[in-house]
Amino acid sequence: MERISFIDLGSNSVRFVISEISSAGSYSLIYQEKESIRLSENMWGENKLTEEAMSRAIRSLKAFAHMAEAMESNKTYAVATAAVRLAKNGDDFIARVRKKTGFNLHCISGEEEARLGFLGVINTVDLEDFVIFDLGGASTEVTLVNNRQPVKSVSLPIGALTLTGNFQKGDEMGEKEYEKMVNAIQDILNDNKWLHDLKLPLLGIGGTARNIAKMDQRRINYPVTRLHNYEVPRERFHDIVEMVKDKPLAQRKKIPGLSSERADIIVAGLAIVEELINYLDADRLVVGGCGLREGLFYDYYGQEYMGGNPIINDILIHSAENVLLGINKRELIHGKYVSQLANTLFEQMEPMHGFGERFQKLLTVSALLHDIGKKVNYYNHARHGAYVLINSNLYGISHVEQALCGFIVMNSHGLLTKEYRNFIYGQLMTGEDKSVGQKLSAILALAEALDESHEQFVTSLATTIKENQIIITAWIRKDCDTSVANAAVEKAVKIFKKEFKKQLVVQWKESL
Amino acid sequence: MERISFIDLGSNSVRFVISEISSAGSYSLIYQEKESIRLSENMWGENKLTEEAMSRAIRSLKAFAHMAEAMESNKTYAVATAAVRLAKNGDDFIARVRKKTGFNLHCISGEEEARLGFLGVINTVDLEDFVIFDLGGASTEVTLVNNRQPVKSVSLPIGALTLTGNFQKGDEMGEKEYEKMVNAIQDILNDNKWLHDLKLPLLGIGGTARNIAKMDQRRINYPVTRLHNYEVPRERFHDIVEMVKDKPLAQRKKIPGLSSERADIIVAGLAIVEELINYLDADRLVVGGCGLREGLFYDYYGQEYMGGNPIINDILIHSAENVLLGINKRELIHGKYVSQLANTLFEQMEPMHGFGERFQKLLTVSALLHDIGKKVNYYNHARHGAYVLINSNLYGISHVEQALCGFIVMNSHGLLTKEYRNFIYGQLMTGEDKSVGQKLSAILALAEALDESHEQFVTSLATTIKENQIIITAWIRKDCDTSVANAAVEKAVKIFKKEFKKQLVVQWKESL
Repeated sequence: MERISFIDLGSNSVRFVISEISSAGSYSLIYQEKESIRLSENMWGENKLTEEAMSRAIRSLKAFAHMAEAMESNKTYAVATAAVRLAKNGDDFIARVRKKTGFNLHCISGEEEARLGFLGVINTVDLEDFVIFDLGGASTEVTLVNNRQPVKSVSLPIGALTLTGNFQKGDEMGEKEYEKMVNAIQDILNDNKWLHDLKLPLLGIGGTARNIAKMDQRRINYPVTRLHNYEVPRERFHDIVEMVKDKPLAQRKKIPGLSSERADIIVAGLAIVEELINYLDADRLVVGGCGLREGLFYDYYGQEYMGGNPIINDILIHSAENVLLGINKRELIHGKYVSQLANTLFEQMEPMHGFGERFQKLLTVSALLHDIGKKVNYYNHARHGAYVLINSNLYGISHVEQALCGFIVMNSHGLLTKEYRNFIYGQLMTGEDKSVGQKLSAILALAEALDESHEQFVTSLATTIKENQIIITAWIRKDCDTSVANAAVEKAVKIFKKEFKKQLVVQWKESL
Repeated sequence: MERISFIDLGSNSVRFVISEISSAGSYSLIYQEKESIRLSENMWGENKLTEEAMSRAIRSLKAFAHMAEAMESNKTYAVATAAVRLAKNGDDFIARVRKKTGFNLHCISGEEEARLGFLGVINTVDLEDFVIFDLGGASTEVTLVNNRQPVKSVSLPIGALTLTGNFQKGDEMGEKEYEKMVNAIQDILNDNKWLHDLKLPLLGIGGTARNIAKMDQRRINYPVTRLHNYEVPRERFHDIVEMVKDKPLAQRKKIPGLSSERADIIVAGLAIVEELINYLDADRLVVGGCGLREGLFYDYYGQEYMGGNPIINDILIHSAENVLLGINKRELIHGKYVSQLANTLFEQMEPMHGFGERFQKLLTVSALLHDIGKKVNYYNHARHGAYVLINSNLYGISHVEQALCGFIVMNSHGLLTKEYRNFIYGQLMTGEDKSVGQKLSAILALAEALDESHEQFVTSLATTIKENQIIITAWIRKDCDTSVANAAVEKAVKIFKKEFKKQLVVQWKESL
């Protein structure tokens, strides 16, 4: 087991996290803190960090150094971005940090920043070809991703703070000023023809993107508050721009979902995003909740635990196994085994349900994590499992898919109407989703039943589908006692009758 | 670590559980199964268990024996109650069980059954003086408890099955037959004058009591499905009797909350409970979710882990610590320490809030478990903590109190409106509860802040309350770094301003 700290010192705030990596290689966040230190405040005249700003930063970093020690984290990766990079006295500041806190602060280049942001995104969002933007105060980093590899990056010299400062004369931005700002953005985009007309989704990390998602969620009454992997279609994004841009500041501060500290610079931020969407001809904006900090983590994890490759191959299965690794070893073996059985049953039963590969994957995830609710309470562990699954860091899965996985787990033990009503994520699901979920639950219930005694004695399965019957032949190790599994199969029989209108028959046969 | 199995072989069903006890002494259920074996079916003519019934029982017990082995449980406590006790061939059956399954089945006396049921209740329900009943098919066990000790027990020869059989002639019970049945119950109660007019609450365990709770919950639209420690006031119970008793069976089967298998014998069951309530002059019926099986567990646990005493002194704190022991040691230390700090702050701030001892206890529980949500996800761990706390096996706490504890944890990090709306247990709370909870959250937030660095450096606290200010002097160990705690205290300052309309000032002083 080791604990590693990561620090991301930006122009506005500094973020500090401690991650724990278990001896089995599973990881989880165990501490995080963010301080608003405004490091770049008043630096742009002379391009020098002010004494006050440096003191604020060092005060926070000292506290983090202390916390790292108290939490027994003995490695720290600390990076500084634009403010330190651009400040003439950046090196002095780094030396002071080393002296006062012991941290070896790395001032990273724009390219390295884009690479780390990319790592945070690519390991947590399931897209192959897309464009990432990270909208900051003074610049916007843009990265083109093809086939999950970063192809090209640029740091555009437009940011929410600088544009507001340059184009807004009084308290509000007038119509003409707005037009001038848009022209300036377009001029800069036109210098980057490689971005033109890519027709790829645009993924945003950072505060502006998160605020857009929050405003959209409030407008459409989205039933949950999760931001990571939230999608805003281009049309709805445009509606938000229209709603925000002409409102005076006092009115903007009241917009549901918009944080009041961002209300002054949101108009410029939205303009940049809108012009990017137009220039790319993107159909939607996707919000990423992970960025530089997570990229720092995956960079380290790839180096130390994945043979140098920081890009995880299948992020959904990887993240599900990571959650599963947090429980005891016996449950881990059972979870993996049940997911194999469920996979085989899904394939053999394909003529009965006709579901495609994506649903197979969602069933795999549900089966891996089906017993995770025992961490909360043995009783009703299927319902608690749905809660834990939905609130775990699973990546590469949409909100509605995660709702579906929760539902599959919840429903595999039967579900009360009241329990379903209280399942908030159910509001994301259509009736069709629910009906698919019920069938997948039935397959999970059978897979669980086959390993009810946690002995992993089934060595292979064969399925024969008849008009009114489904016959599963389960080959098992010699001299196994199937009585416990049999009792569990009886419950699955009822579920199969209901979901597939067929009589389920399980035949046990000893392997040679 | 050890795993112990418990078996309760009743007249209708057999229940099997496996509990795990960690080396630290914390315990949790890891497996449970119930089979409907109808052991007493057709036995009453000759008072002999039938071959078929014994075979059914042995088939289930064999499966349990196998499961116990597969789950590496190496001790089993198995008891049989009325059916085996009263059967002439009970000893033969016990010998057969031993031969076929290896289980050493103990046929326990009615007194022992009452004692074990009492242990299940007294360690999970916070009442001092009350009457327990366990309504079975052929008898009803009644125990008077004074000062948390069982004072007197009786097995009344009236049960839901036998009364239905004796008084119901056709498919339905007529008015006259009902009256005769009530007279028979009253006659038997009149033979037990020590129960008369006790004016104590009546606590019921077993299926009839649980069904009453379910029917009541559906009638009043109770927002959650928990049954343990649910209270039905006498008036509402009476309404249920009136609703049920005159309905024909087909109609009864449709009553929301009533299980269809129990619909045939519920009229007799309700009559017994109603006459008990009247005879005792009880003001309410309390439903206990724990009984004989839990009693078996606490009997063992008391013997092995509590120096022979099977009655836990403070069940709420004990059960909260049991949940807390399930997490890692560092969090355990932090949780206990924060709960001490919160306790001290609560006492010193008494003039500001005026809350009594019970709220102090609820704050203690909330503080012990405030970080338990990290088991689910670090992000939003306060919200997850509320979920885990509410769904953990906490005993000695009412539903609304448990909701309040969840709310205190949830709110200690600030709470979004949408999050609160999705907090189902919040529906149990009044506006006043919520306002109390907010103040207790503020105290918890400050206690957490004082140990933000998890170093436990505060050695004592003193509080000075002024008109617009509250000054906390925190004595700390020598050479401690308070920077992390200070940053956290700043957030508590805002919460104090809002909740107590006072400026919070924390002064750190080094202890001598």
